[in-house]
Amino acid sequence: MEFSLIEAIRRRATAQPGVLLGIGDDAAWLAAPPGEGWLVTTDVLMDGVDFEVGVQSPARIGRKALAVNLSDIAAMGGKAVAAVVGLVLPRQGGRDLAAGLYDGIQPLADAYSVAIAGGDTNSWPGPLVISVTVLGTPLVPGKVWRRSGARPGDRIVVTGRFGGSIRGHHLDFEPRLNAAAKLAAGYEIQAAIDVSDGLAADLGHILDESRVGAIVDVDCVPIAEAAHAAAHDDGRAPLLHALADGEDFELVLALAPAEAARLIADQPLEVACTDIGEFTVADGLWQRRGELVTPLAAAGYEHRLE
Amino acid sequence: MEFSLIEAIRRRATAQPGVLLGIGDDAAWLAAPPGEGWLVTTDVLMDGVDFEVGVQSPARIGRKALAVNLSDIAAMGGKAVAAVVGLVLPRQGGRDLAAGLYDGIQPLADAYSVAIAGGDTNSWPGPLVISVTVLGTPLVPGKVWRRSGARPGDRIVVTGRFGGSIRGHHLDFEPRLNAAAKLAAGYEIQAAIDVSDGLAADLGHILDESRVGAIVDVDCVPIAEAAHAAAHDDGRAPLLHALADGEDFELVLALAPAEAARLIADQPLEVACTDIGEFTVADGLWQRRGELVTPLAAAGYEHRLE
Repeated sequence: MEFSLIEAIRRRATAQPGVLLGIGDDAAWLAAPPGEGWLVTTDVLMDGVDFEVGVQSPARIGRKALAVNLSDIAAMGGKAVAAVVGLVLPRQGGRDLAAGLYDGIQPLADAYSVAIAGGDTNSWPGPLVISVTVLGTPLVPGKVWRRSGARPGDRIVVTGRFGGSIRGHHLDFEPRLNAAAKLAAGYEIQAAIDVSDGLAADLGHILDESRVGAIVDVDCVPIAEAAHAAAHDDGRAPLLHALADGEDFELVLALAPAEAARLIADQPLEVACTDIGEFTVADGLWQRRGELVTPLAAAGYEHRLE
Repeated sequence: MEFSLIEAIRRRATAQPGVLLGIGDDAAWLAAPPGEGWLVTTDVLMDGVDFEVGVQSPARIGRKALAVNLSDIAAMGGKAVAAVVGLVLPRQGGRDLAAGLYDGIQPLADAYSVAIAGGDTNSWPGPLVISVTVLGTPLVPGKVWRRSGARPGDRIVVTGRFGGSIRGHHLDFEPRLNAAAKLAAGYEIQAAIDVSDGLAADLGHILDESRVGAIVDVDCVPIAEAAHAAAHDDGRAPLLHALADGEDFELVLALAPAEAARLIADQPLEVACTDIGEFTVADGLWQRRGELVTPLAAAGYEHRLE
């Protein structure tokens, strides 16, 4: 602990209902909305892997560390309630860095009424590490969107556009909490995941957990401007960037065909919804272009270990 | 994510009631015991600061990372329910290291019926970082042991012995969850903290939050064997080690005099309870030896930042 820094963070934390005891004791104490249970997710982000201190502003870095967790809560069909933030700061410049990180964390927390309920602040001779854990509740009591709920015949619907997020979107994306709230209120969602590893890779996680296959109509995949820019730089097709790049933090959803059609017609979200294919009985991940169906590689980012 | 490693962790996680959905989706889903609210605490531990990879076994390191969080829940008067584990593994040897860490994490979790509900596994070129977040519930519905509850006249009661924990206790200590359960069931606890920064420093945190002072009868402070060994090595008094060393992870409690006397007479815990002084109206932290009352420095470990 670094006491004056903790005091500064504590003074800054916005009061939220349901926080019986926030920063400053051995643990935070939160009121539990009865009967709904709790969602818990954690992500650890590291300098040189998930962001670059000195290249990107501390506020954008701090914002990302919270946003990736909020994206996970959205992908469960949840509402985010509270977050705890663990910092491992480099000794040199650590105090200013921490203040800068909170310049990004606190406004995003406020935007979604998420309490910064506690944390742990450390320093060391190494690079910055940020660990955030977010607690939430299911938007529909007793119901969450598992990866395992997709059924053969369900449509694959995605929010937003894909590819080239390394050019900035991976820091500045909007976690799809508002989209999740509208989806939970108005539509039957069978399964969901947020795209961190890559559209094809994360779709692959749904296939593994749901024990289904999928055919992606690749000409329907919404391609981000940044994917075109990336393609211009490296000569790989924009579609490849959209399928493989990762960190888009959009939602991939499974819905029954009629529900999907209603959602696509309604377009009720702050972001476009696009039908990109269907889940199938047949194993594996496939791409369809006109009549031609060929295998689609589910490659994505995987942390290397030796 | 490193998928085969996550699969291995998932297979190993012990089923616990209340976990509606554990490792393997975007978030864990936990049933909430109604009406009691949730306690949340997080700690980040780093190689070279909190432990030494290559010197201590991965199992002891993993155990510590969970145990320090369980200690925080105990110090709130809580029961631990679930934990999420964020790992930043060095690339070289990271897979074996992760398996070793869980050799220490899982048995400790099982011993206290704590669900390993989720996590995040990463790798990088840097040293090991472990982030653990633990969720719990108050042992007495609606009541937690805040740092701010000590009143002038309350006695200072501690569990266990202090000092020299660097010689091994800081890795192998027992988080005082069973003690907390017995204390909550049988005694009125006004305030509590667990000793991570050091007995004097953490007592100082109670003083700051409760706006009281304290006099410690220093001849009553229980001194650990390891404090004597440390004193032998460095020539500082064993008592100084007991007051300043930190990471004892014992409880410091405030109780009304009659409650304290009853607790000391009962000795109901797996570990000794000792009355070491009183909280006072007069500001500051003081030590008493016979008739002599002098200031006691509240120094402890503080993360340095520049």
